[in-house]
Amino acid sequence: MEKLIGAAVVGQSGGPTAAINATLAGVIRASFGEGARGVVTALYGMRNGIEGLLEERLIPLSEIFAAPDGGADEEKLSLLSQTPAAALGSCRRKLPDPAKDPALFEKLVKIFKERNIRYFFYIGGNDSMDTVDKLSAYIASSGYDMRVVGLPKTIDNDLPGTDHSPGYGSAAKLIATEMQEIVRDCAVYTVPAVTIVEIMGRDAGWLTAAAALPRIVGGAAPDLVYLPEAIFSTPAFLADIRAAFEKKPNLVVAVSEGIRFDDGTYVGASEQSGSTDVFGHKYLAGAARTLEHIVKNEFGCKVRSIELSLPQRCGAHCMSLTDMTEAAAAGSAGVEAAILGATGCMITIIRASEQEGYSVSFETADVRRIANKERRVPAEFITERGNNVTDPCLDYILPLIRGEVPLKTRDGLPVHFTFD
Amino acid sequence: MEKLIGAAVVGQSGGPTAAINATLAGVIRASFGEGARGVVTALYGMRNGIEGLLEERLIPLSEIFAAPDGGADEEKLSLLSQTPAAALGSCRRKLPDPAKDPALFEKLVKIFKERNIRYFFYIGGNDSMDTVDKLSAYIASSGYDMRVVGLPKTIDNDLPGTDHSPGYGSAAKLIATEMQEIVRDCAVYTVPAVTIVEIMGRDAGWLTAAAALPRIVGGAAPDLVYLPEAIFSTPAFLADIRAAFEKKPNLVVAVSEGIRFDDGTYVGASEQSGSTDVFGHKYLAGAARTLEHIVKNEFGCKVRSIELSLPQRCGAHCMSLTDMTEAAAAGSAGVEAAILGATGCMITIIRASEQEGYSVSFETADVRRIANKERRVPAEFITERGNNVTDPCLDYILPLIRGEVPLKTRDGLPVHFTFD
Repeated sequence: MEKLIGAAVVGQSGGPTAAINATLAGVIRASFGEGARGVVTALYGMRNGIEGLLEERLIPLSEIFAAPDGGADEEKLSLLSQTPAAALGSCRRKLPDPAKDPALFEKLVKIFKERNIRYFFYIGGNDSMDTVDKLSAYIASSGYDMRVVGLPKTIDNDLPGTDHSPGYGSAAKLIATEMQEIVRDCAVYTVPAVTIVEIMGRDAGWLTAAAALPRIVGGAAPDLVYLPEAIFSTPAFLADIRAAFEKKPNLVVAVSEGIRFDDGTYVGASEQSGSTDVFGHKYLAGAARTLEHIVKNEFGCKVRSIELSLPQRCGAHCMSLTDMTEAAAAGSAGVEAAILGATGCMITIIRASEQEGYSVSFETADVRRIANKERRVPAEFITERGNNVTDPCLDYILPLIRGEVPLKTRDGLPVHFTFD
Repeated sequence: MEKLIGAAVVGQSGGPTAAINATLAGVIRASFGEGARGVVTALYGMRNGIEGLLEERLIPLSEIFAAPDGGADEEKLSLLSQTPAAALGSCRRKLPDPAKDPALFEKLVKIFKERNIRYFFYIGGNDSMDTVDKLSAYIASSGYDMRVVGLPKTIDNDLPGTDHSPGYGSAAKLIATEMQEIVRDCAVYTVPAVTIVEIMGRDAGWLTAAAALPRIVGGAAPDLVYLPEAIFSTPAFLADIRAAFEKKPNLVVAVSEGIRFDDGTYVGASEQSGSTDVFGHKYLAGAARTLEHIVKNEFGCKVRSIELSLPQRCGAHCMSLTDMTEAAAAGSAGVEAAILGATGCMITIIRASEQEGYSVSFETADVRRIANKERRVPAEFITERGNNVTDPCLDYILPLIRGEVPLKTRDGLPVHFTFD
């Protein structure tokens, strides 16, 4: 295949993660690499994803990250990699169907042509892969030669076609670390008490499963774990609590925000009794808050609910070195694959067989098989009773949280990279 | 003064912190030290503080932490120091007035006599110092010779008579670290949004003040900060939000759980459960939730509330090395002071003058001047408008969060010490 010479553009899209900037760093690094020399003539960063691209809010990454010797500035890349959220900014814009509404795509191609942009990299999750899918399909039919490649990013670990997704390992590490601390905290008193911790994950329970990780390394783990993949039953839950109280007074329960009753309604959608604010608004309780009231009603003991909330997705101070390394490698693999001709695809992670120890390689998969699809926790990873995860599940997750990132700090706080 | 020869007992009380076990490690280390040789004949640990002591649930710390060479097992002490919560267990038991109800005190003295316990160390906060106060007063009048020394511990930093308290620096570091990550996370989108983060601190705003720390080190800080020491006014708050929106679309607000209106009612009162703990404290939840609805009602934009909750007090994975070091030193200072005759006192931290750089020394203060009293954030540390903290406030806090603890990990998770 003839080499396609021109500029590249990279964007970040969807929810922030601790590792999405490591992938951006990987893209930048590869654009300075051997394979890109004389091929990738410049690298632009879109501010706020496709939204900023449409407004031509582009920044010259190949200038910003150039070292005096002409290579990449590794110190800046290292800072960028340890910065959480999305340094370029993000968006949640869903593209229209190009067949029905081609104007937006025509505008994009005009921008690409004006700057001779021949490579398009988009770092994101399921929804962002829809953008990659639509854009690559439109480009293929437009007569303009450009390679469109998706780079996986999601804390939810729900992208299909890949063993796991960059961003998940760091979120899982923070969740496992904080859960272990919460379990220690809750164990200090002797009075009966239940602490219910709500973890992100509307449809896939991968993050909640990570709460159980300390169990297989001899640490302190929650007593019960409920994933959205298993139907939630209040009587079974109360029986689980009662059985757990037989063994110890301090119980810790991990629940996914997305747990559902057998009629499909979210546990967290139930109304919290008597809870209206000064304006008369009813609170949507959240799964943990709802269960707090259910347990308090039944057992009359001290009950507390905790939402790990935003910190679990942007906890770069507790990144997994494995995750950061793979996130960067996925970014570089995307650039290398595109130079060799890949388009309409997403970079995937392939795990080597167990016998060889943990190691990964990178491939590409047709983005049409990935966009808007979800990979959920399989049945064999959940106990029969649906109140915990199995050891094989934890064996799958554990390698992804290994390794600590030596953070650059100033005055006790991690230093972040910013384009502002 | 003649040396008082006998056993020592140490307990942990009140809420968990990331550093309370470092203070326990300091007590254990000093009990093996030069000054204790031939004086402190054994060291016992009370399970669950005074509650376990009354049931004689004691464990032989001097055996558990003995190295083969007769000194302290530094490897075990290091693991103990990086373990959050209270390894011995804790309690929230308030002692009665010995004049009115001496039976409990008589029972304690009986236990002390039987085991020849001559040193009593209690690691805790304001309420725990009430125990130190009452017990030392009773002991003084009982004719039994025993030294009773309090060791400071509180994430709230509200103990009077000391520059700051062990446990605060690590909580402040975690809060500042996670706030910076939250601010990065919230900055990725361009749509107007307000994120309100609720931080622990019923009466003292020290923890909430720490949220602003990134500001003086060039990091990302919240736009507005509200402490319980300043009267909260809804109109002024809405005006602050409106003014902040003039500058940027993504606002982050840090609020203390204890912010109050000018009539003294808690902003979070609509969420208050009405129950009180044994010390008469009301349980609060909901300042951020209440403000979320107030802002949504006024601006109609995206609003989100986050409670940092329990992880902020037990986040040992993000400990301040300064805090851990001082926590251990305070424990050792307590043992050394008691051997030299101190009783009825608490160890205090004295900060050297600014000209000499940051350094501390340890003294003792009469526990009657500390028990049940609170040290709040002074007026000069809060802006005139009451919507942020001043630079001198942050200059005071910053040295306390400096330094990272090299954690011992296994499979990506910190290893904890446990007596179980």
